[in-house]
Amino acid sequence: MKEISLSLIGFGNVGTGVAEVLLNKHQYFKEKYNLEIKVVSITDSTATIWDPNGINLKEALETKESFGSLKFWGNEYEVYELGAYEVVEEIDSDVVVDVTNDKNATKWHLKALKNGKSVVTSNKPPVVFSYRELLRVSSEKDVPYLFEATVMAGTPIIHLLRSALLADSIERIWGVLNGTTTFILNAVEEGMSFEEALKKAQELGIAERDPSNDIKGIDAGYKGVILHNITFYPFDFKKAYIEGIEGISEEKIRENFKKGSVTRLVALVEDGKVEIKPRELPMDSPLAVKGTSNVALIESDLLGELVIRGAGAGIKETASGVVSDIIRASLKTKYL
Amino acid sequence: MKEISLSLIGFGNVGTGVAEVLLNKHQYFKEKYNLEIKVVSITDSTATIWDPNGINLKEALETKESFGSLKFWGNEYEVYELGAYEVVEEIDSDVVVDVTNDKNATKWHLKALKNGKSVVTSNKPPVVFSYRELLRVSSEKDVPYLFEATVMAGTPIIHLLRSALLADSIERIWGVLNGTTTFILNAVEEGMSFEEALKKAQELGIAERDPSNDIKGIDAGYKGVILHNITFYPFDFKKAYIEGIEGISEEKIRENFKKGSVTRLVALVEDGKVEIKPRELPMDSPLAVKGTSNVALIESDLLGELVIRGAGAGIKETASGVVSDIIRASLKTKYL
Repeated sequence: MKEISLSLIGFGNVGTGVAEVLLNKHQYFKEKYNLEIKVVSITDSTATIWDPNGINLKEALETKESFGSLKFWGNEYEVYELGAYEVVEEIDSDVVVDVTNDKNATKWHLKALKNGKSVVTSNKPPVVFSYRELLRVSSEKDVPYLFEATVMAGTPIIHLLRSALLADSIERIWGVLNGTTTFILNAVEEGMSFEEALKKAQELGIAERDPSNDIKGIDAGYKGVILHNITFYPFDFKKAYIEGIEGISEEKIRENFKKGSVTRLVALVEDGKVEIKPRELPMDSPLAVKGTSNVALIESDLLGELVIRGAGAGIKETASGVVSDIIRASLKTKYL
Repeated sequence: MKEISLSLIGFGNVGTGVAEVLLNKHQYFKEKYNLEIKVVSITDSTATIWDPNGINLKEALETKESFGSLKFWGNEYEVYELGAYEVVEEIDSDVVVDVTNDKNATKWHLKALKNGKSVVTSNKPPVVFSYRELLRVSSEKDVPYLFEATVMAGTPIIHLLRSALLADSIERIWGVLNGTTTFILNAVEEGMSFEEALKKAQELGIAERDPSNDIKGIDAGYKGVILHNITFYPFDFKKAYIEGIEGISEEKIRENFKKGSVTRLVALVEDGKVEIKPRELPMDSPLAVKGTSNVALIESDLLGELVIRGAGAGIKETASGVVSDIIRASLKTKYL
């Protein structure tokens, strides 16, 4: 039995989702991979709970559910005022998991890698803005830096691009990578106003309270840059062309729909190019997804067209990607 | 620079396709993977050519194209009367590639693994009928046994099932895995008779001269069993339920089509179950592919539904899978 210790940083929707999977599938992972994953610390915005013998995840989840944050954790002596950087520095663990939205997480990702810890993240900005450096340190220290859940939730587009199709030269990737805009565009096609659609998306928890990153195409831009980073080379986010969905008229969307096309926010990624903009697509295009499904179409020299479609959001669906990476990092399976 | 020697066994459509990729992308693989792949022997049904310093692939391809078989190779002293087993036994190489249709290839696959050679195959029967033993020896000797091209050509369904979705429990897989039957059913939907459709498929090189393995569902059955083997555990082919397309009437197919459904030969793979039969599918089902595209829909506990669609046949498309495996085996990247 291989035993792995883990520091979980972030305990919101994704973090609690990850904890639930680790709790519910503990026995499954032991049997399937001969692997015991022990969470030694959990950090939210209020506190860090830390127990080198392994935290009782059931209690941690109950504390979070009942009281909203970890500072109300029952066993006082285990509650610490440690931020992410201190956790990485002071707590002994094999894998650091970042499920925060911390835009400045790069510095503690680097710290972790330098200390020989594997890093698993669903947090996009480090992978968008500091990929070259993160990859260099990960490679120097020979520890995994994994980020499946940053694009298409647990749908394994990252693993596929990093470690499948080894003989192919990838020419371009088309993707519909942002579920919020798909939901809104689809609702407008079916007669809702843009405002109503956005409000409904927020009510359903699909859109954030501040939806501007989605609507303006920033989130899709982040994802496009991540795909460029792993397929070609690190791309400067400032050079991405990004046009959101706020400029298109409801009439145009419905007119397209009437003549049999849908409008979707499409990412196009080529060598040296990341372009995000709304495009009119035939109804039977592989890119014409609905709901929070995401899709990517990969064009390459030998295989031609490869389509991968799956969840692009959701708590369980995102935890699927994070925990898959945790297992990969734990088994030290090579990750090209 | 890592140098890898390779024995290529089989020099028909797939074999020459593999040789072409290795020839044309030689420089690309050197730059991308720091890897030099040297083909030290090529075997077809007439002869083996062997050169420890590396065979000139351009000449080998020209010989094959001009004279149809390798026994006409110009440099007499390099032509040997060696079959696959002798090649594996006598020729020093790191990777053995099987792109034959040899139903009895298991014995030389095992021989290769026992000698510490990696095996890459597009040849299905060993993976269908002897998976348990092959996997055991591969694992004991710690050498890769890889077979991406046995299902969906180079579309990386095998790699995905073996090494992605590590946190998910897979519940079932639906697949349309045989392009010949899709082509025929689609042609019948569009008005052709079954016989005409089959003849056209043969003219286009989609169907074999003896198409019974496709028509009767055997080929799809092989593929279903391979998916079961890697997802759950080795499955006894005799226990698969297999119904081909020869029993359905043209009228029924066209009637379905008129009311908006298509008929496809669908594989269903669950724990302890492989079932191949024609099914009526809504036009907008993810399984409703056309042409030689193949598709698989994977259902799992966390991610929900994942669809992967791509080439299921074709020379370049199959070579894509074989060469990807050759690179994986060469880099000794772990393959779970």
